[in-house]
Amino acid sequence: MIKVIELKRTVTDSNDRDAERLRRELKDRGIFLLNLMSAPGSGKTTLLSRTITDLAGKARIGVMEADIASDVDALRINALGAESIQVHTDGMCHMDAGMTRSGLEGLGSDSEIVFLENIGNLICPAEFDTGAHRNVMILSLPEGDDKPLKYPLMFQKCDALIITKMDAASYFNFDLQAVKERVRALSNTIRIFPLSAKSGEGMAEWESWLLTEWENHKNA
Amino acid sequence: MIKVIELKRTVTDSNDRDAERLRRELKDRGIFLLNLMSAPGSGKTTLLSRTITDLAGKARIGVMEADIASDVDALRINALGAESIQVHTDGMCHMDAGMTRSGLEGLGSDSEIVFLENIGNLICPAEFDTGAHRNVMILSLPEGDDKPLKYPLMFQKCDALIITKMDAASYFNFDLQAVKERVRALSNTIRIFPLSAKSGEGMAEWESWLLTEWENHKNA
Repeated sequence: MIKVIELKRTVTDSNDRDAERLRRELKDRGIFLLNLMSAPGSGKTTLLSRTITDLAGKARIGVMEADIASDVDALRINALGAESIQVHTDGMCHMDAGMTRSGLEGLGSDSEIVFLENIGNLICPAEFDTGAHRNVMILSLPEGDDKPLKYPLMFQKCDALIITKMDAASYFNFDLQAVKERVRALSNTIRIFPLSAKSGEGMAEWESWLLTEWENHKNA
Repeated sequence: MIKVIELKRTVTDSNDRDAERLRRELKDRGIFLLNLMSAPGSGKTTLLSRTITDLAGKARIGVMEADIASDVDALRINALGAESIQVHTDGMCHMDAGMTRSGLEGLGSDSEIVFLENIGNLICPAEFDTGAHRNVMILSLPEGDDKPLKYPLMFQKCDALIITKMDAASYFNFDLQAVKERVRALSNTIRIFPLSAKSGEGMAEWESWLLTEWENHKNA
């Protein structure tokens, strides 16, 4: 059985300050926190599973799964031997800094890199600072190449964009070049990683960025 | 150029009453309104495009596209010769009855069946009655078969579930039987239509249901 934390909605007008405080505390505790955001079904858990396996021996990775209901994602991560915690958000459509802090308390203390798998939603999570050191967005190829036009804030807020399910490229009309141009129009600093966690294509570039950013974080 | 309405957030504690009123008004005006909800990139616009083409001569269909930004969806519908209106939600993650009423005012008066393409989001739209006569959810096959476990409210609220992109079934692990069982556990009245707007497979069943519900609505 997986441990489930039922989070209560936190009402705070000082989420930004709270997030800044959490970010510093985690740094002091030697934790590098990444906030993963995407639409439902983009393949976040599959990506994390492969990343955990690939980086075994290089980094101890933990995962906090945030969902409205169920514990299917935390069970998958747990099966890999990684630290994981499932949090339920009391119906909330996003995580804020207070909820992230509460969830982290249940995670265990072994992890050096922690991924917050935020609620599957391209809108609300982009509006709330979770206290993470990096924000990463995942767009799956079947969702289509028009998403930067429709959900601009999410692309503006993220340090990296991972495009998953690239192995299905022959099956869908998806113009990767158009996506890159649309994303660049929203952010000139975001890094873009097209990959497939299934075939392994592109995983090395993403994992190399992750390890480099972790080093930068430790030395900052 | 497509007409864009910039909706302002409406703050009302009486959305349910407002929705009930809108539902009656639309009935009196001979309009059958369906609220389409899904995650981003599920193929709502592609499904509607095919439905509009297939039902030409049987029903005059109009579409209200709700998005945070862009007008790409309304342009696609407009190109088919159908009435369409793009509404922007001022960053809001869902449509409520007041916003739906405002949007409908810009649509024109020729449509008998109107689809509201709600914001791409599996959480917030399920919590707000738009005044529609039927609620329809779209789940695309690449999103995976675990969605009823993670977003139960959406499945409970809908009269029909359309599973799109079935033509890609050989490409993804997707257990249709498991989805049906998970959905049945949440609702024993919801109708389920697996289909592909690309190949046309399953479209006739969905369109037949739509026309029957329209008849039921007119005779109610």
